[in-house]
Amino acid sequence: MSLLVVGSVAYDGIETPFDKIDRVLGGSATYISLTSSYFTDKVNLVGVVGKDFDDKDIELFKTRDIDLEGLQIDESGNTFFWKGKYHYDLNSRDTLDTQLNVFEKFDPVIPESYKNCKYVALGNIEPSLQLKVLEQVERPKLVVMDTMNFWIEGTPDALKKTLKQIDMLVINDSEARELTGEPSLIKAAAQIREMGPDHLIVKKGEHGALMFTGDEIFSAPAYPVVDIFDPTGAGDTFMGGLLGWISYTDDLSAVNMRRAVIFGSVMASFCVEKFGPERIKNLSEDEIYQRYKEFQELSEIPGVQRA
Amino acid sequence: MSLLVVGSVAYDGIETPFDKIDRVLGGSATYISLTSSYFTDKVNLVGVVGKDFDDKDIELFKTRDIDLEGLQIDESGNTFFWKGKYHYDLNSRDTLDTQLNVFEKFDPVIPESYKNCKYVALGNIEPSLQLKVLEQVERPKLVVMDTMNFWIEGTPDALKKTLKQIDMLVINDSEARELTGEPSLIKAAAQIREMGPDHLIVKKGEHGALMFTGDEIFSAPAYPVVDIFDPTGAGDTFMGGLLGWISYTDDLSAVNMRRAVIFGSVMASFCVEKFGPERIKNLSEDEIYQRYKEFQELSEIPGVQRA
Repeated sequence: MSLLVVGSVAYDGIETPFDKIDRVLGGSATYISLTSSYFTDKVNLVGVVGKDFDDKDIELFKTRDIDLEGLQIDESGNTFFWKGKYHYDLNSRDTLDTQLNVFEKFDPVIPESYKNCKYVALGNIEPSLQLKVLEQVERPKLVVMDTMNFWIEGTPDALKKTLKQIDMLVINDSEARELTGEPSLIKAAAQIREMGPDHLIVKKGEHGALMFTGDEIFSAPAYPVVDIFDPTGAGDTFMGGLLGWISYTDDLSAVNMRRAVIFGSVMASFCVEKFGPERIKNLSEDEIYQRYKEFQELSEIPGVQRA
Repeated sequence: MSLLVVGSVAYDGIETPFDKIDRVLGGSATYISLTSSYFTDKVNLVGVVGKDFDDKDIELFKTRDIDLEGLQIDESGNTFFWKGKYHYDLNSRDTLDTQLNVFEKFDPVIPESYKNCKYVALGNIEPSLQLKVLEQVERPKLVVMDTMNFWIEGTPDALKKTLKQIDMLVINDSEARELTGEPSLIKAAAQIREMGPDHLIVKKGEHGALMFTGDEIFSAPAYPVVDIFDPTGAGDTFMGGLLGWISYTDDLSAVNMRRAVIFGSVMASFCVEKFGPERIKNLSEDEIYQRYKEFQELSEIPGVQRA
């Protein structure tokens, strides 16, 4: 089934304790669409880039069969640029530079042919823009949204308004705690679901993820990546794998949502192995399914026989 | 098979954001022995208490069929007393009072009848005392040890000497990082295993636990306890459930060790539901096996069929 992806398309400058790169393709919509394209061939991208956007990056999207009718090219300026530096433990980072450029005036216009997409991925952008997307589409089967501390602190009212209109929120554990002021993740999750989303996924980085759906909690492990090279895009590739699988299967049962969480985790575990989106440019189906199997083995709890 | 438990027997004063208690039975050997007694009926306790130790607490151990030949009663002083206060998020605590009392001169003497115990649990005490225990026993099948930041910082040489003599270390994630100076848990685990223990369990509190054994990593989820009432003893009950199951089954295969980790997690999840050891005084077998099943459901990753 068709998937609409809305978010940022950017260039990133990245420093890690191991290496640095001055300019590499980035942005939430980039990571989500590239990743979901491994599962479904109907990925529709809405975003904006500037006059400096490389032809080879356009080509990359096309190679992955991503529809670019919704990608605006704004000749009045450059593409959104972000530069960040990760600390020694890779769990925290400093932003060194942010140039919004053409992204500052981003007005998501959904092409007619995208309006009946069954699945919608709202990457991390201003909540009012996320809402604007939803006002343009016909009622999708599932709307999944990401957000960040910047909007939780800066535009809480707009965020809460948008939360009412979505089906699933995907956020970090620290963001879940900040959004509710509740230290217990289990209680925070219940409060967030009262704000609107039926389903909630809390990403916990090296500790995996929790999904809350119906009366069920699913605890997904994290893949034990020995050398995390660059965490950039891990959260977005998670969302890409999740929604790619859901779009492909068109199945919202709790058991299939578990598979989606693991495919999200699988894709995130690949993403961090190289700089930027490098590792998720050409994965094989075998690699993806093999890693899914490794996730199963990693967390399998054997049965017991009572005496 | 028989299990030898060595550690502290104490009284605790506990303050949490929800309630407080002035004096309740505590100590690592208390929690480990009470918990393991649900799985094996051959629990042998070595520790020391003072002249103030309550008869009803002796009775409690006896009710649980715990052998007390190794419990020294030192009439020269009072039982070890610790008082602590948990912070709002229950993940950190301040020590308000520590009175070592008779525990200061604790010299673990292993009774003749305990010396051929197949399994040994070394609760969190001074590493040189843990080593002293090992010098007195015949070669056990598995020696499992706990430690804490206090010994990592205070007696690193003695700790490293003891680590060489044990089979399995059970510690917190922050302690694993402190012991190695390595932020990646996966790398820290490899370094710790080079220090001696073949098997390693890293406890991650609300994020579950990781077991490293052979070439295998096992990621165990945490039970989603809605109301954590008092975290005191959670780590020790984990070790009690783990070693109780291993002693009962006498099976060190990787698959059975996974079961042991889950029984440890099961018992810890009960422990935190009430003050001190209250909840683990009279659990039913049904409750224990039912919760094991809930752990299985919580983390089950369904199979996928490739297109």
